[in-house]
Amino acid sequence: MSSRVTLADVARRAGVSRTAASFVLAGRTDMRIAEATRQRVVASADELGYRPNITARSLRTAVTGTIGLISDTITITPYAGGVIQGAVDTALTHDRLVFVAETSGDRDVEHGLLQEMLDRQVDAFLYAAMFTQLREPPELLREYPVVLLNCLAETFTAPAVLPDETGAGATAAMALLDTGHVDGIHVIGGRHDTADTPGGVVAGRERMAGIEAALAEAGTAPASVTECVWHTPVYGYRAVSDLLARHRPSALICLNDRLAFGAYQALHERGLRVPDDVSVVSFDDSDLASWLRPALTSVALPHYELGEVAVKLLVENRLEPGQVRVPMPLRERASVAPPATAR
Amino acid sequence: MSSRVTLADVARRAGVSRTAASFVLAGRTDMRIAEATRQRVVASADELGYRPNITARSLRTAVTGTIGLISDTITITPYAGGVIQGAVDTALTHDRLVFVAETSGDRDVEHGLLQEMLDRQVDAFLYAAMFTQLREPPELLREYPVVLLNCLAETFTAPAVLPDETGAGATAAMALLDTGHVDGIHVIGGRHDTADTPGGVVAGRERMAGIEAALAEAGTAPASVTECVWHTPVYGYRAVSDLLARHRPSALICLNDRLAFGAYQALHERGLRVPDDVSVVSFDDSDLASWLRPALTSVALPHYELGEVAVKLLVENRLEPGQVRVPMPLRERASVAPPATAR
Repeated sequence: MSSRVTLADVARRAGVSRTAASFVLAGRTDMRIAEATRQRVVASADELGYRPNITARSLRTAVTGTIGLISDTITITPYAGGVIQGAVDTALTHDRLVFVAETSGDRDVEHGLLQEMLDRQVDAFLYAAMFTQLREPPELLREYPVVLLNCLAETFTAPAVLPDETGAGATAAMALLDTGHVDGIHVIGGRHDTADTPGGVVAGRERMAGIEAALAEAGTAPASVTECVWHTPVYGYRAVSDLLARHRPSALICLNDRLAFGAYQALHERGLRVPDDVSVVSFDDSDLASWLRPALTSVALPHYELGEVAVKLLVENRLEPGQVRVPMPLRERASVAPPATAR
Repeated sequence: MSSRVTLADVARRAGVSRTAASFVLAGRTDMRIAEATRQRVVASADELGYRPNITARSLRTAVTGTIGLISDTITITPYAGGVIQGAVDTALTHDRLVFVAETSGDRDVEHGLLQEMLDRQVDAFLYAAMFTQLREPPELLREYPVVLLNCLAETFTAPAVLPDETGAGATAAMALLDTGHVDGIHVIGGRHDTADTPGGVVAGRERMAGIEAALAEAGTAPASVTECVWHTPVYGYRAVSDLLARHRPSALICLNDRLAFGAYQALHERGLRVPDDVSVVSFDDSDLASWLRPALTSVALPHYELGEVAVKLLVENRLEPGQVRVPMPLRERASVAPPATAR
């Protein structure tokens, strides 16, 4: 099927044996080969555009230069496609390719695709989650280089690359404090403390810790925290509609952009303007943030950087357990203004 | 690094030579091996959980069971992550894995990663684009099984898997016609006929052809067509704001959900309600469609099915050139109602 240049082609052109050509091109010195011959082989390989067959080479060195990215449902979430791009780009600059596979969180699927990857002698693994959570990689992976991406394990020892969610919480709070908001800062979404996720999710707990610490530092606290599901805007819409029946907030901190979208819908319905009447700050910096009117100030999830940092740890073989936190930058847009009472 | 069970382990347990074990497990009959020995080898392999090393096997059969997915920027577009999931899932059910790589549309990057894939003896390729467009795969791919995904080539002969955009245009128009709209149907986005894309884009031309054919069939035509960029809601917002200064539309056909999002913003600002005052139908069925209030009726891009169909063509070796069009279903929500004048 392929017309790729083979070692035999190079040997023929150089007028040497296949074995001699192989030794020269592998840089081996344990076979006596005349310098003129060596140069002829190198020149022939160059002229023919010969590239070594990595599948064959991998039998000798057990390094195929491939990384397996095993995730739960990362590729179908618009929020995390950048993780894959960061991983794939960074891998390519190190002559690595990435197998991407999803498990839908199913252990049997995970086992099956792990075997498929091991059959192809994948060198190293990224074990990834769609959103920051506790996830234990399968035992089988203990013997391979592994970096956890957007997840934390309790017993599996490996480096974990995660967004700095606590820092992001403080950043969001500071964006309001710096504009003069002190009282009347209401939080929508909270720790995601719901029936299905009692106690909240990792990102929720960490973002809230950052928010509360920054407000406490300024001598204040959230005026209210509404715990709810973060998945779709309707939860933000309901939470803010309920809130507006009881309070007139100075500012809202929404735990992600979807909740902020719902918050905008509820504020519009009550005739309240962003940011003139109510300031809104959010997390994730998804496409939505720039699409809303007015555009939404949001603390960005560093998707691309997460993939990039994780692959670098793998290729540089920096596999000491511990957390690597990637900063979450503030994207300032038009949804934050000084409090209405101050104007 | 690995403790995977090797052929040597199986041979040792069965008390036979490595060669004999290899012949038995490869199903070869050109070496005389006693039936009892054969059974012992099979049982040992089974007990130890032995799996053949595909990298070694591929040297003999030149089939590694891997598919290379080469795309321009597919993974970072939220709209197309489902394509990857469809491809990856379908490949796995056929014992194939997928290398995912992006070129950002750069020919040098494409050449480099193609070489990386050929070095690993990738069997077959999906050549994909973020949105339906003309794209010529590199010459190097002519000797491999290739399926074009979401793109069309002029000289490269391969099957192309694409959404049925023309059918989708007719579907969108029918959704309005069936509800009683005849006149006052305005189109926002058109063929995407802009300075950078004179004459429009493939999806634009095809969707418009479907819209115009269905309206003509009903004895009508678009009341106006605004050509504009589809990328972000602001273009829809501007187009509809301009339109409302001159017309009072009965219904809008927006060429994608982002334009529809902008249309909602412009309608809200003018105090017009969806669907009471103006019906809106759109294309893509992205997350936005279900997030808007009221939820948006949209003709769905079949992302998952595109990836699924393309991989099936590859693994079933159905590589005759030609177009395979995947249907785009209507997702009916709450943005279409009978025209205000009819009530």
